Amino acid sequence: MIKRIGKHTLEFTSPPRVAGFGSVVGKKEGEGPLSNWFDKTVEDTTMGGETWEKAESLFQKEAVDIALKKANVSAENIDYIFAGDLLNQCISSSYGLRDFGIPFLGQYGACSTMAQTICAAAVFLSGGAADYCTAVTSSHFCSAERQFRLPLQYGGQRTPTAQWTVTGSGSVVLGAFENGEFTSPLENVSDDMLKRQIGVQHICTGKIVDMGITDANNMGAAMAGAAADTIYRFLRDTNTSPSDYDLIVTGDLGRVGTELLYELLDKETIDIRKNHRDCGLMIFDLDGQDVHSGGSGCGCSASVLCSYLLKNMLKRKYNNILFAATGALMSPTIVQQGESIPGIAHLVHFVNM
Amino acid sequence: MIKRIGKHTLEFTSPPRVAGFGSVVGKKEGEGPLSNWFDKTVEDTTMGGETWEKAESLFQKEAVDIALKKANVSAENIDYIFAGDLLNQCISSSYGLRDFGIPFLGQYGACSTMAQTICAAAVFLSGGAADYCTAVTSSHFCSAERQFRLPLQYGGQRTPTAQWTVTGSGSVVLGAFENGEFTSPLENVSDDMLKRQIGVQHICTGKIVDMGITDANNMGAAMAGAAADTIYRFLRDTNTSPSDYDLIVTGDLGRVGTELLYELLDKETIDIRKNHRDCGLMIFDLDGQDVHSGGSGCGCSASVLCSYLLKNMLKRKYNNILFAATGALMSPTIVQQGESIPGIAHLVHFVNM
Repeated sequence: MIKRIGKHTLEFTSPPRVAGFGSVVGKKEGEGPLSNWFDKTVEDTTMGGETWEKAESLFQKEAVDIALKKANVSAENIDYIFAGDLLNQCISSSYGLRDFGIPFLGQYGACSTMAQTICAAAVFLSGGAADYCTAVTSSHFCSAERQFRLPLQYGGQRTPTAQWTVTGSGSVVLGAFENGEFTSPLENVSDDMLKRQIGVQHICTGKIVDMGITDANNMGAAMAGAAADTIYRFLRDTNTSPSDYDLIVTGDLGRVGTELLYELLDKETIDIRKNHRDCGLMIFDLDGQDVHSGGSGCGCSASVLCSYLLKNMLKRKYNNILFAATGALMSPTIVQQGESIPGIAHLVHFVNM
Repeated sequence: MIKRIGKHTLEFTSPPRVAGFGSVVGKKEGEGPLSNWFDKTVEDTTMGGETWEKAESLFQKEAVDIALKKANVSAENIDYIFAGDLLNQCISSSYGLRDFGIPFLGQYGACSTMAQTICAAAVFLSGGAADYCTAVTSSHFCSAERQFRLPLQYGGQRTPTAQWTVTGSGSVVLGAFENGEFTSPLENVSDDMLKRQIGVQHICTGKIVDMGITDANNMGAAMAGAAADTIYRFLRDTNTSPSDYDLIVTGDLGRVGTELLYELLDKETIDIRKNHRDCGLMIFDLDGQDVHSGGSGCGCSASVLCSYLLKNMLKRKYNNILFAATGALMSPTIVQQGESIPGIAHLVHFVNM
């Protein structure tokens, strides 16, 4: 059942459970601080594909394959797949996933898409519309730079506020759960997942927040306001404080956006510094990997969630995580027309049950 | 409550009701056969905006404003807005809707987006996640041509299979309904809507279907397979036949795609010719308006639904409509890389209660 808490938060009285998850990243991500946590690191970031766009769709396909395999659910038992990416017309999703034959609901939340797909899946599952749903997203440094900024061949200088788009994908299989069991029980589930321990207890959907940022190389600042807004609304709705959570994770604010987030929340007398982590600051070594303000992209929060974060929940290092993926609803076309870049952040509350 | 029928169809035991709807179209659409049905026709398709993209976002804002006004629900009482469009990064939605302050879930289903947004809204409402949701989408001839094909200034010759992207937007406000009343009752509802008569009884989510079409000027053919697949699955799941419905409406197959749809369904011994209509063939006069194979775009099915179709349901000319919006998941980037264009179609079953 879905219970509405406060104005914008949904509580799932019998939380949908994580039945499987998978992550695939590129070479640079595989050399970063989280290298041992990913399911797969590929040396050749074209994945043997002819183009970066086709490569990115293969990352997404691979992440879904791993998540399905770990959950031991076949594609035909997945009722809905919620997917999206940063590329125009969400092509990584539509091309990467067309062979699965799963009813498909394309999502667009820019870099917040991983949280958005999980939010939508959780409502479908708790509302009784599905037994199993898959959520997936991806990004690719080369396809993103070409589309949003400058062709790599141009060799443009990157600004200090610029972030490095993560090449990678993450996917989660969620199952509806009632009376101590999946509503459609699985056979031969892998050990980790057998515990069915990770539940989606709450979600809080983002609003569009526009900070007036017009610099396509300062995405962190464009998203910080949205992150602050969603975290603030969630804490207010649930009447909780930052110390009630093991971790409060944002998607890809990077160094610049993170500082701004702290300042914005200070105004509401909320201090998340102690237990805040940003996926964009976790996935790369900012001193050694020349990524300027940190990692970014749908694939950043997706691959960190589907590796370090969920694996450490299985290990019970963390039992209680707020995952607020952040997106800059940025379009080169309209930014060239002088518009600012609105941001959005969706939040998922994962709990070890 | 949500009941699952067959493999892919959802039935809402207490169907969410249409509380309001609105449509806004451009000059050419206003000169077509449905001219008297739209809420608003604008002569200046820039809407006084500086660019086509900004104009399109104003169409979307206007359609939402009309729908909210008719429903007599203020934006702050809308729990979620499901929105999307054809432009890169769904900018019509994010820029057109940012001022409403409604929790926002961006959807991408290409021209199938109107049905997709209603599907998602219906599940959120019936699942208990919301009292009111808004669904909206748009397209604009000038912004779409620039993005997907050639700049208008180029003056390229259009092929006979080409369709004309509709300039327009449609929006629906849906409300959760239990025990003969909206779960959050409205005050001073307009007369038409007071009847609360139009319900969303079933939905059937589309799968990605690839017919191998690689011609960006033959969208109808790319989508026909997806339409046939969804209609076939819905009829099988519900054990009904085409004659059980007053109308079976597709989004924008146009002349070419419609013929192909008939042929594909013939193979399953399903004949929908008698009560089938295609929004792309309804919105323009194909003999007089030089639109080649017919209208297309998210705004095509959205504006026809939110005018002629729903208004004729209120008049009880039609009581029972299958609305299958069709989308071509087409990207200029990947089509230039030699890939084919996958299609998708989502279906909504509207019933006068």
